[in-house]
Amino acid sequence: MNGHLLSALPAALDAERFETLVRSGGGRVERIVSHGQASPPGFWYEQDEDEFVLLVSGEAELGFDDGKRLTLTPGAWAWLPAGCRHRVERTANGSDTVWLAVFFGAA
Amino acid sequence: MNGHLLSALPAALDAERFETLVRSGGGRVERIVSHGQASPPGFWYEQDEDEFVLLVSGEAELGFDDGKRLTLTPGAWAWLPAGCRHRVERTANGSDTVWLAVFFGAA
Repeated sequence: MNGHLLSALPAALDAERFETLVRSGGGRVERIVSHGQASPPGFWYEQDEDEFVLLVSGEAELGFDDGKRLTLTPGAWAWLPAGCRHRVERTANGSDTVWLAVFFGAA
Repeated sequence: MNGHLLSALPAALDAERFETLVRSGGGRVERIVSHGQASPPGFWYEQDEDEFVLLVSGEAELGFDDGKRLTLTPGAWAWLPAGCRHRVERTANGSDTVWLAVFFGAA
């Protein structure tokens, strides 16, 4: 099985689009396409699973609950261990932001 | 923890360079940098682990034991389930080929 992260991008994007590409045991790989979306005010992701996220195209900023911000450009990755509270502060407006997210499954 | 897949690329490359970026349980994420290398004649990868591989920069061609070839350009990914015999037929010569490889751990 194979594919291309920048092909068949969804045309209109009212919401972020999550697609599972492959699964292995409790783990999986997702493509996420954003188009200017950010996490709602006060919302935090706080997951049971370790996540590795790679920015493939576009631009995005992650926020962490210690106030740190991390700007991601294509090729940048972040490790979000289980329980790490984080949010998407912004994604590029007017262009597609494509993420690759790998979830390793709950311990 | 965070980083950039295209930064701190090794300068001289006599061999492919494998670096583990993160680990989770039995799984891990690696950056692999190639510079024209290919698998030796007759060599096949045949792994206990499911692998998801993404070509990040450069170009490469995978081969499979049914004779199929798969050319990868940046953004292209392939799913190599445990036991799937595959080899690297070629990587771009004269430029860096950067791979992201995710191993999910043996079942």
